Amino acid sequence: MNYFDWIAKWSVYTPCKTAVASVDTGNTYTYKELNQLSVQVEKCLREEYSIQKGDRIAVLACHSPEYLVLFIAAQRMGAILVPLNFRASVPELVYCIRDVEPVLFIVEKEFGHILKPVKEEIFTRSVEFQNIFEQAAGFDSGALPAEIEPEQAVFIFYTSGTTGKPKGVLYTNRMLFWNSLNTSVQLEITSVDFTLNALPPYHTSGWNVLLLPMLHRGARVDFIRSFKPKKVLNYIQDQSISLFLAIPTMLRMMVKNPAFKNFSASKLKYIVVGGEDLSISLIDKWAENGILLRQGYGLTEAGPCITSLHHHDALWKKGSIGKPNFYVDHKIIDDEGLEVEIGEKGELCIRGHIVTPGYWNNSAYTFEKIKDGWFHTGDIVKMDKEGFLYMLGRKNQLFISGGENIYPLEIENLLLKNHFAKEVAVVGVEDENWGEVGVAFMAGIKHALSDEELAQQLRSLMASYKVPRHFIYLDSLPKSGIGKIDRKKLKQLFKQIQHEKRNIS
Amino acid sequence: MNYFDWIAKWSVYTPCKTAVASVDTGNTYTYKELNQLSVQVEKCLREEYSIQKGDRIAVLACHSPEYLVLFIAAQRMGAILVPLNFRASVPELVYCIRDVEPVLFIVEKEFGHILKPVKEEIFTRSVEFQNIFEQAAGFDSGALPAEIEPEQAVFIFYTSGTTGKPKGVLYTNRMLFWNSLNTSVQLEITSVDFTLNALPPYHTSGWNVLLLPMLHRGARVDFIRSFKPKKVLNYIQDQSISLFLAIPTMLRMMVKNPAFKNFSASKLKYIVVGGEDLSISLIDKWAENGILLRQGYGLTEAGPCITSLHHHDALWKKGSIGKPNFYVDHKIIDDEGLEVEIGEKGELCIRGHIVTPGYWNNSAYTFEKIKDGWFHTGDIVKMDKEGFLYMLGRKNQLFISGGENIYPLEIENLLLKNHFAKEVAVVGVEDENWGEVGVAFMAGIKHALSDEELAQQLRSLMASYKVPRHFIYLDSLPKSGIGKIDRKKLKQLFKQIQHEKRNIS
Repeated sequence: MNYFDWIAKWSVYTPCKTAVASVDTGNTYTYKELNQLSVQVEKCLREEYSIQKGDRIAVLACHSPEYLVLFIAAQRMGAILVPLNFRASVPELVYCIRDVEPVLFIVEKEFGHILKPVKEEIFTRSVEFQNIFEQAAGFDSGALPAEIEPEQAVFIFYTSGTTGKPKGVLYTNRMLFWNSLNTSVQLEITSVDFTLNALPPYHTSGWNVLLLPMLHRGARVDFIRSFKPKKVLNYIQDQSISLFLAIPTMLRMMVKNPAFKNFSASKLKYIVVGGEDLSISLIDKWAENGILLRQGYGLTEAGPCITSLHHHDALWKKGSIGKPNFYVDHKIIDDEGLEVEIGEKGELCIRGHIVTPGYWNNSAYTFEKIKDGWFHTGDIVKMDKEGFLYMLGRKNQLFISGGENIYPLEIENLLLKNHFAKEVAVVGVEDENWGEVGVAFMAGIKHALSDEELAQQLRSLMASYKVPRHFIYLDSLPKSGIGKIDRKKLKQLFKQIQHEKRNIS
Repeated sequence: MNYFDWIAKWSVYTPCKTAVASVDTGNTYTYKELNQLSVQVEKCLREEYSIQKGDRIAVLACHSPEYLVLFIAAQRMGAILVPLNFRASVPELVYCIRDVEPVLFIVEKEFGHILKPVKEEIFTRSVEFQNIFEQAAGFDSGALPAEIEPEQAVFIFYTSGTTGKPKGVLYTNRMLFWNSLNTSVQLEITSVDFTLNALPPYHTSGWNVLLLPMLHRGARVDFIRSFKPKKVLNYIQDQSISLFLAIPTMLRMMVKNPAFKNFSASKLKYIVVGGEDLSISLIDKWAENGILLRQGYGLTEAGPCITSLHHHDALWKKGSIGKPNFYVDHKIIDDEGLEVEIGEKGELCIRGHIVTPGYWNNSAYTFEKIKDGWFHTGDIVKMDKEGFLYMLGRKNQLFISGGENIYPLEIENLLLKNHFAKEVAVVGVEDENWGEVGVAFMAGIKHALSDEELAQQLRSLMASYKVPRHFIYLDSLPKSGIGKIDRKKLKQLFKQIQHEKRNIS
């Protein structure tokens, strides 16, 4: 029974329809061609690289139709694709690769400079992305029988975690399937839909919000390697894109671009927005241009699509993350684990086929986060009496910068470990470009670097988006009664400092 | 995890949206109202009628929003709805009721005349349809917690069978779910869709082609008690119906109606057609009016939706029943059970979650029809190299009249059992109004009735649509070498007779 090989299905239903295309290379594939190329690549991976069921294939590349082909081939073999973050630092990449132990490491030419230092640390067989496709051309495209199993893992996505180290979140076919159903019910995707994917492949959002759910329904997805506001605005307008997915940071950049002024996209039903808090002023700016934003809330550990605010509700329920999706069980609990009343705040917990079976190589953390099938999100929400959810805060100190989840503890640990200071606290503060950015407060300073020099050093230790934007030095950090660093006070302090700066300038 | 209570879901998502309405009574229910009324009826059935999980509830009524409410209430309780055929004869109804042993028999006032003779034979508690709703009004609509189980039976549909007696086909929640997914992928149903249901409730098509799949997606379904060509044409046009389901007999009646001449339905995406063979001339007549027909093939035992011909393929693949639906496994086998080559004919077999677990009270027949999970349809098909299926004939002598499956053996047995003749053979022949009608060939006649008198007597024994339209008396029936009645020769004979008649008149 083929529930999961969507490309094979559509290659029979609509063989001649365009499935995917690249804005950058112009490469275009019909469903039949996509299917055939995937068969060739699968044969190549099996025969040239001896890939077997359960093997991990790590990939460092921008998103593209060919990256999708790697996924399809891996899925059919029961291999696990591990999309690595090309914005990560070398130590972070080395950590992930050591953790996931891939059989093969596929790297795009563009990222060769990263490959070199990584190769000094790990000994995985590596191959250039393009080579796979050159080799694959030598194989025939006669279909291999695929028995895709529901519980077989297909992806591992690395995310930052509260406890400092990246964690690999397992994705199974079953998760993909139910997440796709949720998405197509909520977004009403049909085969006539058409999107441009401008998100990177190393987060689940680059696969499981629109890309795979739309291919499940026989729709069309074009790819752009990296987000460029003007180019994307023009493409949406000229190509009659019907659905678009963005994080608020992208939407802010688009609004600021001169092309936004005359932007008109009559075929665009709405823009799906997630990944960070969406400000009401941003909703309004797009609404002025006749475009509704559809706020959603997602989690790498759960599909990711958890809630969705219908675009018709976008203007009268501003600030809500919407209602839970169709095949998602939810509850909101207090500190004792009891469900709260309507209107009261508590931690959101999620259950269903969309929840990950766990973290790769980390059953302790799995045990901590998933209890009796309920995934504890760490997000504090409330539900109003019409069933709309509102995000109120987070149990941990997570903040989101340009759509990237950042856990202060991870940065603090690195600053301490590398002896930059005796005491460190990183907090997220509002930023008009990135939503939030990090501020590092330090005491007992042990270095004599300028802010710029310090940032430079940190960029070799962590992805650049994690590097704090501001460094503030204090004699000691403010503490609460029980000796815990008072992060609220630090945020207030930062506001005061900014206020004073503005008064001076 | 709520996968099956679609009405409860949409009563949260779109509480104020119209879910269902009746053309006849004007009754209209939003999703919230539909949900609340279903809760009230459930409480009424539990408390007034002691309905429990697994109990059968037989219903004799025309289709309506309230009939749907009975289904929703029964589904939530784990009770099994048995929609009885109000066109069946009293002996047929008595047979079904004895077979299914309902705890409750709900009968619409209009069918009181049927109830009386039935009540002489069976002793099930009965109640008037309307009474349930009057009683239900006394219950509050606070939701009961429903844990709807995938394998719980929800419907039993009685169908004619090759071996003469009606057979009850079990439907589970799982079947409903996967059939609905198949339908919404193929028909691209979204919440903005709107249909008018003009099919009766006693076949699966009155529930599982559009009604339940559309409610699964939060769309709108209106009901008309009985099909009237002019009224339906006007309703489709005036109400901007987007999807409509019909059997070819209905479409022929619509074409013949004067209202068809100026019929214009710009919002109608296409008409879904199934239940009997669709002639190419009928496809063309609707195409002239700008309306595409979407031919499908279904089976009570499998959801029912098995194949679908995309409306864009309707004109260049005329006569095809389309391609197998998304979550349907199929194979075409020869008499040895081996799969045939592309282009060769064989019996169509179906596998998947959409296949019935079996026949009520009839494991012998279940065993005969379902082997290793494969349902053997008895339908002879071939597949062309693009994957389109064509219906070529049937392994048994089934013919279809006005959308009703008719098994000659059932009629032959009744004619023999009631001593009308020594030898009987019933064959289906083409008919311009009904698609096909039955012709009874008899030898060794034992009665002195006129054709009209004989038909009259037969109507008390079987549903009127089963009564042969023509009776032809012979000295003996033609036989093949091994003594089997030669039905081909009988069909030829009938054609000759018709030809001669035309020449005389």
